[in-house]
Amino acid sequence: MATETVMLGHGSGGTMMKRIIDEVFFAAYGNDDLLKGDDAAVLPALEAGQRLAYSTDSFVVTPHFFPGGDIGRLAVCGTVNDVATSGATPLYLTCAFILEEGFPLEDLRRICASMASAAKEAGVRIVTGDTKVVNRGHGDGIFINTSGVGTLAPSINLGGAQCRPGDKVLVSGTLGDHGITIMSCREGLNFSTTLESDAAPLNHLIAAVLEAAPAVRCFRDPTRGGLASTLNELASQASVDITVEEEAVPVKSEVLGACEMLGYDVFQVANEGKMVCVVAADQAQAALEAMRRSPYGQDAAIIGEVTEARPERGPKVFLRTAFGSTRILDMLVGEQLPRIC
Amino acid sequence: MATETVMLGHGSGGTMMKRIIDEVFFAAYGNDDLLKGDDAAVLPALEAGQRLAYSTDSFVVTPHFFPGGDIGRLAVCGTVNDVATSGATPLYLTCAFILEEGFPLEDLRRICASMASAAKEAGVRIVTGDTKVVNRGHGDGIFINTSGVGTLAPSINLGGAQCRPGDKVLVSGTLGDHGITIMSCREGLNFSTTLESDAAPLNHLIAAVLEAAPAVRCFRDPTRGGLASTLNELASQASVDITVEEEAVPVKSEVLGACEMLGYDVFQVANEGKMVCVVAADQAQAALEAMRRSPYGQDAAIIGEVTEARPERGPKVFLRTAFGSTRILDMLVGEQLPRIC
Repeated sequence: MATETVMLGHGSGGTMMKRIIDEVFFAAYGNDDLLKGDDAAVLPALEAGQRLAYSTDSFVVTPHFFPGGDIGRLAVCGTVNDVATSGATPLYLTCAFILEEGFPLEDLRRICASMASAAKEAGVRIVTGDTKVVNRGHGDGIFINTSGVGTLAPSINLGGAQCRPGDKVLVSGTLGDHGITIMSCREGLNFSTTLESDAAPLNHLIAAVLEAAPAVRCFRDPTRGGLASTLNELASQASVDITVEEEAVPVKSEVLGACEMLGYDVFQVANEGKMVCVVAADQAQAALEAMRRSPYGQDAAIIGEVTEARPERGPKVFLRTAFGSTRILDMLVGEQLPRIC
Repeated sequence: MATETVMLGHGSGGTMMKRIIDEVFFAAYGNDDLLKGDDAAVLPALEAGQRLAYSTDSFVVTPHFFPGGDIGRLAVCGTVNDVATSGATPLYLTCAFILEEGFPLEDLRRICASMASAAKEAGVRIVTGDTKVVNRGHGDGIFINTSGVGTLAPSINLGGAQCRPGDKVLVSGTLGDHGITIMSCREGLNFSTTLESDAAPLNHLIAAVLEAAPAVRCFRDPTRGGLASTLNELASQASVDITVEEEAVPVKSEVLGACEMLGYDVFQVANEGKMVCVVAADQAQAALEAMRRSPYGQDAAIIGEVTEARPERGPKVFLRTAFGSTRILDMLVGEQLPRIC
């Protein structure tokens, strides 16, 4: 029997599209809002004073399936995490597919099941979606866009600009797992059979840290561009310096080995299930303990601190190495590994 | 001088990506929320009792530029219209690009300017975004996803399921302009030098109709699959029949000529700036007049009515022709013209 694949008619707006929606998307993650079938989902009113947090991300990773996850898990976790970084509770997602003619329906079903599972873990619902199909050779199997909204309590006001000298910098676990996993898959390298993408929804971890340490300045997930880009963004937003202690940064030995062999800087490698948190020094320990109580924060560590920027030059990020020397930790300039997420 | 094009590094998360964001996206449609640069936009609290309307759409149309619009105008108008169909006031959009390596930056700037202009016309703001770049040959220049949120007053409760026998069906203008324009561009046909895509934001038109005719049952924009698919969806949601008077449906003569020549059914051709509205019979005239007062509703017409479905078969849509005969107006089955939006 021929493999069922995506056809142009699945994007037509007609009966074939209705069928793929019913049999694939609704079957995986149907819910009352999605099933209404109107063009926009209508969602309940917020509680008084609550604001909206709103984010979007497209996912173009190859391969579509990799140890520890797949493009569907990434698409849900990535947007959940972006919404959660504001301190909000993510509630609703949209999901839009750009499918290439010929993409196996079996793969699409597997991806949708993975999205449903990640959404359930995060406690969010996919409430509306869209499906487009492009001709063979004009896409790459599957691209997914998710957007997400969450509600933000009036008392919470996080952001990169809130960082100030004296604050501590935490990371919720080991760096580089996602980037090195994808690279290993793609290049057929076998650094380790145990290495997996860290893709995970971190909204519950974030909520726990916020409760334990209300003096959090900001959260940021170090995805493309890695920790180095994230810290440079924060330094720039707040006009401060940040110094990281290399020895304090958790990195798996397989990841470090791969980076050394390939000439990658682990600080610039992408993560999909890690959170950077800047917090007032006196609450850093409480934040760390809250992270470590989360299943995704076992390896959390305090890795550095915020200091005043020197007026004669712009905000900088420094790395103090194990040997006591200090180097500038730059933002990634070009491209390390395309299509990492 | 070589043409500036999109490079893989523009999707890296590093300094090249920061530059394209600053110089292209912020330059076109920057605003306070977007410029904050955090991962999620934080938006003001809603008024008491207001609900959220939430929608998403990806846009893959080729060619990217066509008479009457471009992929950017479509991306803004499409999502604005989907949010507005619920009766909501669209407020905020997200915008996510999937760019192919080699795409001319000049085209991207033009598309972003067009998005800024359409957003301004609709009165919405692009508050957060995302940029991915795929390798040459794995995309098709540019794909755009937009999502949108709007606020919905407690008194409004529209939806396909609200249609009931006796209601009138309106359309806000001529059918098929967008689909035939795209097809003419793509195939190098010249049906007319005056034919243009109808891509337009219809939120102001919808608000005017709702004010004039509070007994509106639902709005729906007849995009992919055309009027035939839209009416079949409504009939199915409400378990009713719908009968359309062929002579009452506004169609431009160039569009009709093209459809006849190519064997297309104009009722299945896509529109991007038209709205179908079902309204209680005693307010149909008021709704019609409100549509006609809008710049995008000059050719609005009452085209049919809702009747009871016959119990021995499912809900159906009928077309009464100029000759007095009646045929079933079916949903599009396969694909008429791929990548129409």
